[in-house]
Amino acid sequence: MSVNNEVHVIGLRGMPIVQPDDDIAELIVTAAAKQGASIQDRDVIAVTQRIVSRSEHQLRRLDDFEPSRFAIDYANQTEKDPRLVEAVLSESTRVIRQVGGVLITETRHGFRCANAGVDGSNVGGEEFVCLLPIDPDASCLRIREGIAKHTRADVAVIMTDTFGRPWRHGQTNVAIGIAGMLPFRDYVGEKDMDGRELKVTTICVVDQIAGASELVMGKSDGVPAAIIRGYDYPRGDGSATEIVREMELDLFP
Amino acid sequence: MSVNNEVHVIGLRGMPIVQPDDDIAELIVTAAAKQGASIQDRDVIAVTQRIVSRSEHQLRRLDDFEPSRFAIDYANQTEKDPRLVEAVLSESTRVIRQVGGVLITETRHGFRCANAGVDGSNVGGEEFVCLLPIDPDASCLRIREGIAKHTRADVAVIMTDTFGRPWRHGQTNVAIGIAGMLPFRDYVGEKDMDGRELKVTTICVVDQIAGASELVMGKSDGVPAAIIRGYDYPRGDGSATEIVREMELDLFP
Repeated sequence: MSVNNEVHVIGLRGMPIVQPDDDIAELIVTAAAKQGASIQDRDVIAVTQRIVSRSEHQLRRLDDFEPSRFAIDYANQTEKDPRLVEAVLSESTRVIRQVGGVLITETRHGFRCANAGVDGSNVGGEEFVCLLPIDPDASCLRIREGIAKHTRADVAVIMTDTFGRPWRHGQTNVAIGIAGMLPFRDYVGEKDMDGRELKVTTICVVDQIAGASELVMGKSDGVPAAIIRGYDYPRGDGSATEIVREMELDLFP
Repeated sequence: MSVNNEVHVIGLRGMPIVQPDDDIAELIVTAAAKQGASIQDRDVIAVTQRIVSRSEHQLRRLDDFEPSRFAIDYANQTEKDPRLVEAVLSESTRVIRQVGGVLITETRHGFRCANAGVDGSNVGGEEFVCLLPIDPDASCLRIREGIAKHTRADVAVIMTDTFGRPWRHGQTNVAIGIAGMLPFRDYVGEKDMDGRELKVTTICVVDQIAGASELVMGKSDGVPAAIIRGYDYPRGDGSATEIVREMELDLFP
């Protein structure tokens, strides 16, 4: 069987609870080696936003957020914690939808998601929230370089988060940061609707890899990283911000 | 290494070009055995819409579509083939967006995608188009039962197609039909924004599996099916139409 036609998705277990300033690359390298899946050239490493945020001091006390009048009013209407609403708004540049308890915003990175990616669950008690990393691409690059330092392996890194989406129920894992690869793969050669022109199909491979990683990571903190092995990914210096649609192009294609 | 924590995605090569009335289940079983990856209990089989449509006589002559006045006018404005426009409209219940050459519609199944999933590429010349299967869940069920007949293996089946999406550039493979599994997996236990209530996170696992299968299938017809092995999927009688959001719930969550 050709190796090129088989992709393995390997969840990494046994990583300790990540603390501020922990070296995520080292934790990943150690966990992979321990379970007999030492990192290799051309692996893609998927890592959840959560542990990167923890290592980068993005786990914050709710009391650090002083609610605005707007946040207080909305929190009262919806029985939310006004400090948490303030944290969400402070991470946002724009409110896309605010109906009942649903608060969908555009983050400072440009991502559109519920609560600006601010996570109040499993972060060490009710008095903390976890914000997205400030620059997820830069975080991925640091992990990529750290893995190269520890193992000499040339890998790509994808940071994942779990987002809802319009039109289809259910959330999926998507890429919010990347390093060492391009977000898209183009397939040229399909005919256009008129049967004459060549069309390019652009596949967002990093979102598909992020989704595949969820199959082994789940939602608990027990498996916060995965190796995707055997996929001949498009190499290069890509950014997850390339995936974000500008408002003028808000519907595909 | 625990098997439960490792998922294999295996592309199936060497399948013949599918003809009307071909037994897709048999072709998959044969191809898998030939490449030493015989189908097992609890495999998920991903299959592209294209070959199922071919087997179900959904490869149609363009001349079968008599363009309406509306189709002719739009085709003239955009230099499309009016018969192809008519094919798209005849597969649609609603036009969602029609700007320039972009025609996004809601299909009779409820899916929202470009050109109602009608495919004019690689279908044996310019005089043919490929429509989506009439009932993709039913097609998946037939394949699931066919595989059980040929191998006694109890598998789940997902039919995939490549859709664009709002908010994020690039297309991804999604599930348009399923059999033998549920589309969603619920994770209970996260705290709500107020830190008190329990929240349910619902992951659309079938879309993630569809995306993972694209990593080995690509866009050519050379690998029209894949095995996803090692994923403990939620079993049951699900339907891909459960994924479709009703208009009233058009934004998540």
